[in-house]
Amino acid sequence: MSELAFQDQGAVRHCHGCGSDNERGLQVKSFWEGDEAIATWRAQPHHCGGTPENLNGGIIASLIDCHSLNLAIAHAYRAERRAIGSAPRIGYVTANISVSYLKPTPIREAIELRARITKLEGRKAWVSCTLSAGGEVRATGEVLGVRVE
Amino acid sequence: MSELAFQDQGAVRHCHGCGSDNERGLQVKSFWEGDEAIATWRAQPHHCGGTPENLNGGIIASLIDCHSLNLAIAHAYRAERRAIGSAPRIGYVTANISVSYLKPTPIREAIELRARITKLEGRKAWVSCTLSAGGEVRATGEVLGVRVE
Repeated sequence: MSELAFQDQGAVRHCHGCGSDNERGLQVKSFWEGDEAIATWRAQPHHCGGTPENLNGGIIASLIDCHSLNLAIAHAYRAERRAIGSAPRIGYVTANISVSYLKPTPIREAIELRARITKLEGRKAWVSCTLSAGGEVRATGEVLGVRVE
Repeated sequence: MSELAFQDQGAVRHCHGCGSDNERGLQVKSFWEGDEAIATWRAQPHHCGGTPENLNGGIIASLIDCHSLNLAIAHAYRAERRAIGSAPRIGYVTANISVSYLKPTPIREAIELRARITKLEGRKAWVSCTLSAGGEVRATGEVLGVRVE
């Protein structure tokens, strides 16, 4: 049986970026790889940016935001030696996101996300994330998440 | 006859965030108000975040990104005393976006965007943007755009 994505273990449901129950959302699926989180995602044609060939910057920000926050949530459960989604629920919200767009992201390529926690302090988690396609990093993001439950 | 939105004057077409031709996109419509750009936008239920009541953070980043870049484009046309979308085409891409989420954004309220250019230097334009709902600022964004054509 294959490992379940963070998002399919009950911690998030509705979110446009990563909720398993949001049929019109982006449905990011994040998995552990050591202490990092990885995800692979495929765009649809309407996710394009200024040209039909490239992925939209807002979609890129969404992918980085959701993948990074899900890592923060998964890490918090792991630190408590509990299954993701188990009660009591752990939730994070994004306080700040910064995304740098290094080069265009071709919309037809598989999108690869890789995130790691760089700092933890009280209820705050800082996450760094790269978004790659065709073997090249196309965008980088820094996400500050705050635990709210 | 009502004033046309920046996006309906031919400068952008495909973009998921603001392209007039993208039927599955967010279709942000930006207008001049003095030297600032304003936009009003309504979410659909699937644009929610962690809860069905609040707007998704990635969607917020998309709205701020597109509204801010369209201001940079409109400003560049205005500086050349030309109609938006006229030849030769003026285009900007986002180099960096930073969004701070101050409080939840209720999904049923009208979303109001207000952007202003804070600095211009060579091909670069820095834009500050607020996103409000229910009379309160919910998120702020800083966008660095770079002119590419």
